[in-house]
Amino acid sequence: MRVTPADIDLANSLADAAGAAILPYYRAAHGLEAKEDASPVTLADRAAEAVMRELIAKAFPDDAIIGEEYGVTEGTSGRAWVLDPIDGTRAFISGRPIFGTLIALMIDGWPMLGVIDQPILKERWLGVVGKPTLFNGQPAATRRCAELSKALLATTSPALFGDDQLHAFEHLDGAVMSTVLGGDCYNYGCVASGWLDIVVEAGLKIHDFAALVPVVEGAGGRMCDWQGDPLTADSVGEVIAAGDPARVEEILEALACRGH
Amino acid sequence: MRVTPADIDLANSLADAAGAAILPYYRAAHGLEAKEDASPVTLADRAAEAVMRELIAKAFPDDAIIGEEYGVTEGTSGRAWVLDPIDGTRAFISGRPIFGTLIALMIDGWPMLGVIDQPILKERWLGVVGKPTLFNGQPAATRRCAELSKALLATTSPALFGDDQLHAFEHLDGAVMSTVLGGDCYNYGCVASGWLDIVVEAGLKIHDFAALVPVVEGAGGRMCDWQGDPLTADSVGEVIAAGDPARVEEILEALACRGH
Repeated sequence: MRVTPADIDLANSLADAAGAAILPYYRAAHGLEAKEDASPVTLADRAAEAVMRELIAKAFPDDAIIGEEYGVTEGTSGRAWVLDPIDGTRAFISGRPIFGTLIALMIDGWPMLGVIDQPILKERWLGVVGKPTLFNGQPAATRRCAELSKALLATTSPALFGDDQLHAFEHLDGAVMSTVLGGDCYNYGCVASGWLDIVVEAGLKIHDFAALVPVVEGAGGRMCDWQGDPLTADSVGEVIAAGDPARVEEILEALACRGH
Repeated sequence: MRVTPADIDLANSLADAAGAAILPYYRAAHGLEAKEDASPVTLADRAAEAVMRELIAKAFPDDAIIGEEYGVTEGTSGRAWVLDPIDGTRAFISGRPIFGTLIALMIDGWPMLGVIDQPILKERWLGVVGKPTLFNGQPAATRRCAELSKALLATTSPALFGDDQLHAFEHLDGAVMSTVLGGDCYNYGCVASGWLDIVVEAGLKIHDFAALVPVVEGAGGRMCDWQGDPLTADSVGEVIAAGDPARVEEILEALACRGH
């Protein structure tokens, strides 16, 4: 089974609909939380996921849906849409326009299509296995990174690592040129576009990473887990994105020191 | 001496000119670094500061200028323009549109006018002592924060703290609801607009913090150092911004544990 033009159309429609649902809650009036018994970000999350689930059910009723807010709807087609309406909750509630909506289509457990959408900036990365990644409709390409010591590394927060993982990350942090914090899914788009070299994170769920894989790999990069294995529905959520696949071995070596 | 309408006009012109100088280098083509013997961000920094210095010298030749890139030009008026063309270098080089241009007018050592400008998003906070802070021309207001345990805290990177400072920051981090990393000067704009409650940083230079003070205070917030004293040209660069002045004492208490 392959990704079809109808799948790509639906993915774009999902991103459009999620963005429209999220917008009213971004930088929303103070006090919304108290009034509605849910925070603005939770309301936005739910509204965006609900509208995406509706559109999927209408277009492909046999597909499964795995959403961050409303869980799993089983399917019979071997295909699953994986949704994270707002990745980067803290960025969203801080008024920073670098959160994102993540949409993936997994086929037989493999992420085959991915969207990273930033609805405020109207920036969208679309990746499909076997095709070049598009950034707002134009091809995106990762950049070469001649050596690890010249790499620009990003991670959302060191507080998201366990002790062993933090030890490993600090080893990598010491080997690169510079590390930038925050960013969530937006960092992976920046890798795809050649502005960042590496992202390393842990503790990601399937809805956090499935969409990233086709985006980064279709732009010439490589994504894998901390053992160098491909990311699938069964991965534990330790994620590496490298703009230059030639640096992956060194990244794995730097991270391999955990617990030592 | 007070801030005049001509000062405000100049500040806006400086921000416009800096933005125009920076834009060509943002997300610039790979390889610029090697060709010109300076990184894109350094070239953008220099171009933006040079054009701002020219405009100041033309409008107010007796004013001093303190710039991040080109140092100090002495003056005779008791007034100093303090410039940081790109605050958030790592955000800039990562392709994140949340860096900023900082422009302050200090009179007798006190920050009396401040601009935080984000040229990609076309977002500008303008603060003048005694006047309401404007965000893109509209009044901005901080939000109330009923208790520290409900506060949203931001800091650019824990790696920018010394050991004692980090210990103190972690104490505060444990007392708030949530902490978001990255953001640089953009965080202070978000405090002024009521999206964030607190920013705590250390190691800031005068060009990093002078512009922030009138922006945050004109929106109803309070800025001070880690001892609770006002920020002046002589401050050591330990900075607190609180959207709700009622929380400052608790922030100071939480940070006072350093070294214990």
